[in-house]
Amino acid sequence: MYLCVLENYNDMDKTGTAGNRGPDIRSDVWVEVSPVLSGGIQISIKSKVKALYGRQIRELAEAVLRFFELENAHVFIEDAGAVDFVLAARLEAAIKQVVQTDKEFLLPLLEENKTTIRKDAFRFSRLYLPGNSPKLMINAGVHKPNGLILDLEDAVAPAKKFEARFLVRNALRNLRFYGAERMVRINQGARGLEDLEFVIPHFANLILIPKCEEAEDVLRVTEKTKQLLTQNKLDNPVWFMPIIESAKGVMNTYQIACADPHVAAMAIGLEDYTADMGTSRTNEGTESFFARSMVVNAARAAGIQPIDSVFSDVSDMVALAKNVKRSKALGFDGMGCIHPRQIKVVHENFAPDAAEIEKAKRIFLAFKEAEAKGLGVVSLGSKMIDPPVVKRAITTIELAVNTGKLNVNWMES
Amino acid sequence: MYLCVLENYNDMDKTGTAGNRGPDIRSDVWVEVSPVLSGGIQISIKSKVKALYGRQIRELAEAVLRFFELENAHVFIEDAGAVDFVLAARLEAAIKQVVQTDKEFLLPLLEENKTTIRKDAFRFSRLYLPGNSPKLMINAGVHKPNGLILDLEDAVAPAKKFEARFLVRNALRNLRFYGAERMVRINQGARGLEDLEFVIPHFANLILIPKCEEAEDVLRVTEKTKQLLTQNKLDNPVWFMPIIESAKGVMNTYQIACADPHVAAMAIGLEDYTADMGTSRTNEGTESFFARSMVVNAARAAGIQPIDSVFSDVSDMVALAKNVKRSKALGFDGMGCIHPRQIKVVHENFAPDAAEIEKAKRIFLAFKEAEAKGLGVVSLGSKMIDPPVVKRAITTIELAVNTGKLNVNWMES
Amino acid sequence: MYLCVLENYNDMDKTGTAGNRGPDIRSDVWVEVSPVLSGGIQISIKSKVKALYGRQIRELAEAVLRFFELENAHVFIEDAGAVDFVLAARLEAAIKQVVQTDKEFLLPLLEENKTTIRKDAFRFSRLYLPGNSPKLMINAGVHKPNGLILDLEDAVAPAKKFEARFLVRNALRNLRFYGAERMVRINQGARGLEDLEFVIPHFANLILIPKCEEAEDVLRVTEKTKQLLTQNKLDNPVWFMPIIESAKGVMNTYQIACADPHVAAMAIGLEDYTADMGTSRTNEGTESFFARSMVVNAARAAGIQPIDSVFSDVSDMVALAKNVKRSKALGFDGMGCIHPRQIKVVHENFAPDAAEIEKAKRIFLAFKEAEAKGLGVVSLGSKMIDPPVVKRAITTIELAVNTGKLNVNWMES
Repeated sequence: MYLCVLENYNDMDKTGTAGNRGPDIRSDVWVEVSPVLSGGIQISIKSKVKALYGRQIRELAEAVLRFFELENAHVFIEDAGAVDFVLAARLEAAIKQVVQTDKEFLLPLLEENKTTIRKDAFRFSRLYLPGNSPKLMINAGVHKPNGLILDLEDAVAPAKKFEARFLVRNALRNLRFYGAERMVRINQGARGLEDLEFVIPHFANLILIPKCEEAEDVLRVTEKTKQLLTQNKLDNPVWFMPIIESAKGVMNTYQIACADPHVAAMAIGLEDYTADMGTSRTNEGTESFFARSMVVNAARAAGIQPIDSVFSDVSDMVALAKNVKRSKALGFDGMGCIHPRQIKVVHENFAPDAAEIEKAKRIFLAFKEAEAKGLGVVSLGSKMIDPPVVKRAITTIELAVNTGKLNVNWMES
Repeated sequence: MYLCVLENYNDMDKTGTAGNRGPDIRSDVWVEVSPVLSGGIQISIKSKVKALYGRQIRELAEAVLRFFELENAHVFIEDAGAVDFVLAARLEAAIKQVVQTDKEFLLPLLEENKTTIRKDAFRFSRLYLPGNSPKLMINAGVHKPNGLILDLEDAVAPAKKFEARFLVRNALRNLRFYGAERMVRINQGARGLEDLEFVIPHFANLILIPKCEEAEDVLRVTEKTKQLLTQNKLDNPVWFMPIIESAKGVMNTYQIACADPHVAAMAIGLEDYTADMGTSRTNEGTESFFARSMVVNAARAAGIQPIDSVFSDVSDMVALAKNVKRSKALGFDGMGCIHPRQIKVVHENFAPDAAEIEKAKRIFLAFKEAEAKGLGVVSLGSKMIDPPVVKRAITTIELAVNTGKLNVNWMES
Repeated sequence: MYLCVLENYNDMDKTGTAGNRGPDIRSDVWVEVSPVLSGGIQISIKSKVKALYGRQIRELAEAVLRFFELENAHVFIEDAGAVDFVLAARLEAAIKQVVQTDKEFLLPLLEENKTTIRKDAFRFSRLYLPGNSPKLMINAGVHKPNGLILDLEDAVAPAKKFEARFLVRNALRNLRFYGAERMVRINQGARGLEDLEFVIPHFANLILIPKCEEAEDVLRVTEKTKQLLTQNKLDNPVWFMPIIESAKGVMNTYQIACADPHVAAMAIGLEDYTADMGTSRTNEGTESFFARSMVVNAARAAGIQPIDSVFSDVSDMVALAKNVKRSKALGFDGMGCIHPRQIKVVHENFAPDAAEIEKAKRIFLAFKEAEAKGLGVVSLGSKMIDPPVVKRAITTIELAVNTGKLNVNWMES
């Protein structure tokens, strides 16, 4: 039995570590796990709230260690107010550096984190959350973005990629999203395909695929996703949002947008795109006008949502508003946010304005009238209204109602 | 014999109607045809000009009824100054709602309505005429647009699509076009293919194909056209102008432009395009710059004419002129008109200016010199002039002569 | 023997001529060669420097005539200060009009004209030199353009195409380039493929392919080039720069850029492009914005350099500087020059500015640090730096050092 356990150890002298510590760290925890040959489990805890939570921390730690059959180890926990799913993620990440196992320690899934989202859900805003920073995750949903992105890619330093996966997995299960779409940005290439194993079985709504350059980049991700859904006996829809971030991606936008019927939106990432082009990003955006036009056209041609790049100056709300208006005028349906305070400005400026609502109401009423009369076609004056225009009008009405710009009972008044 | 006639009736109780009536209606007629079991033909006519034309109306009506072998019917005709081909179209449309027949009542073809047009004819302006409004048709040609479009699509309400076909067919045969190219805009899809049966046998010069999204949309129309020409033993050229009105169409411009050698021009329709993109049309046109650029480039690459969208504010001639200059600067060869007063402004601003004429003359003279010397190549100074540049210069000279900006004998002076 | 020689003559009555003469001609020579039946070689020389160089001219002329086995001829040489390789080229061109031979009279190759250039060499500037004007060639290199283009295409009149080939061939071997990349612009089509026989065996670094419209236009040139390299037992790299000069070329930019791994750059030629589009070139460039965007994107997507059109107003340096800044902002890596005085302005404005250098230094240092630590990935803060961004930073550093904007030892300070 002793020998048997020993075989599981990767390295008896190694210490597994995970999490963050330091003066600026909150809602997180630093964990060190050192397997030893004998002496049982020795846990030492450092926490400002030790008096209050020390016992709870110890009990969860013991449960996790027991789960992974670790019988002799020195464990050091420096807590900065981590909630259970964070502590569990850190312990698992630390343990898996020193123990080889396929088991996963999962807390009970929040029932509300199983909700599905429809393909054409509103995606005005999506807030990027670094995948290894619990502090930013905890209350992100209260700012009411349409989507919350747990980011495993650029916002996670290479050395932290491993532990971030456990945190993101646990967040998908146990973080409160307040109705926001549960999104994950995976890494590029092979690492991204591995990332999927940590997110697909846990009801992620949408996967952002970074630096897409051709349809195959999407297909590798959608195929792996389908496999994982089947293996886990799940049938919830998972949507995909490829991000175009290079000249090559721009040349292949249409093929990428059409790659799989589960692609729901296509975004552009201008920081990397302009680097690839050898240009610099400006507020006027002349250098990316062609690329953004390609993304909007290709997305619309494929019947999916075109989504604009983030705006990096988080302190200038006037410039942001101007940028959103320009995005909307070009045809974008939404954009990324890197700070919660951007969300409100993004929503206000993407929302339909009075003229748009008025026009949509006229088309919607004509549509309802045609429906009532049993007519196959909708017309406004002498002009036939095509189905996509009707669909867009319905979307506008819904947006207007959702953003409080139109009373839900407007037809009755 | 009686029974035999009866079998042709779709519905003995039904009344066939066609045409328009009301205070604003001119040059049109309202017709009601109700088959009855016996009693012969009863025609009642209401017309301000009944004293003058009553007999002529009655004679034509009787001829049409006889032609369709309708022996017992009540017929009501409310005339507002319709010419013969309009009255005949209305009667035929009404009759064919109650009588099943493959026969067509055709007045003798105007000899001048058999003229053909060359593929690269000037197409600065084309005036849209609602396909069911005789009032707008009658004198449209005197405004001298390069083309007159009998529109069966958006300008005809769904309920009027059926009768419009007869009016458009008769107009192709008997309306005076004053030298304008005889164009027809058919409907989308299967209805558009049926429309062709009413226009191809009657010497239409050019067919506008709305909402083209891929090469196949063109090919279905060109194939059907070829069949109809063969069936009718005709060999006059029929040209096609696909209209790009969606994001998908924009992505496929080049394939659409190259779909068939009889595609002579490609137009863009910005009202529908911006609706499909989820944007609004502005005078600056930033939202459609990419799409218009695609259309111009694809058309030029395929060696056909790029044609711009209509300008919808029919009262602002200054804005129209500015818009035409912008179109021309981007490379467009013409645009649509929705009011006769737009034609002159469109012609004046698309016509070559003094500098363009001067340059074209230099190239043309170099070409003539090379031709005289038997040289295979044309050069201006040390620069070889490529054949497309020579061709363009010749076009410019022709345009300048045609628009009165250059004397036809300029080479002699 | 007599008969044998006679058979080689194309025409005993013909006089072969080559070169230029007249008041404005310098560094060139006019040559007339008339074969006769007997009487040996009669050379008459007209030169302002006859006293000084008359004997040298005569000796070279005799050597050339002897080489081509021309035993009886009247030769007239009107010299305006031609260097040896020019005189030899003119004599050979004149002789080959009257003698059929496959031999080539080659002066010893300058050793420095065998240097090779790497695919991604800096190509800020390339100076066009008319392929039949020795005067402009002789000191062109002292202006230090990145490349010198010996132009066989538009800058050579049709009647001079034949003799220009010999001059360009000899210039490749014997002109001093002062370190500039040795480029040749060949003609279009079949003539261009023949041009290659005069340049590929003589260590041309890069071939400009004019008016490319599809990948095949490139492949015909690269295939012929490979054949010629093999035939001549050469293995020096030859790069290609297709020039996009038509709407069709614009539609096929990406395929053209990817046609062959030896395509190192892609240029746009706006004079011909705007002619093909039926537009006029403006300083703002709205009419070519789409085309230039396509070229930059396609080139970057293929990993090659995008190169802008020449700027034709050689007297306006302020407008040129503005034009270069606009080019660079769009992502171009360089542009053509048609006057030596443009080179300095082009270099100064394409060179990286202080902010770009600062950013590149940060990325470069992060890259060096990652390399030193043996890390597989480079990161700056939490952001992973992709290999293309690192590569671009290295390029920027090199450019900064090369243009004197950064000390070569900057890392040590």
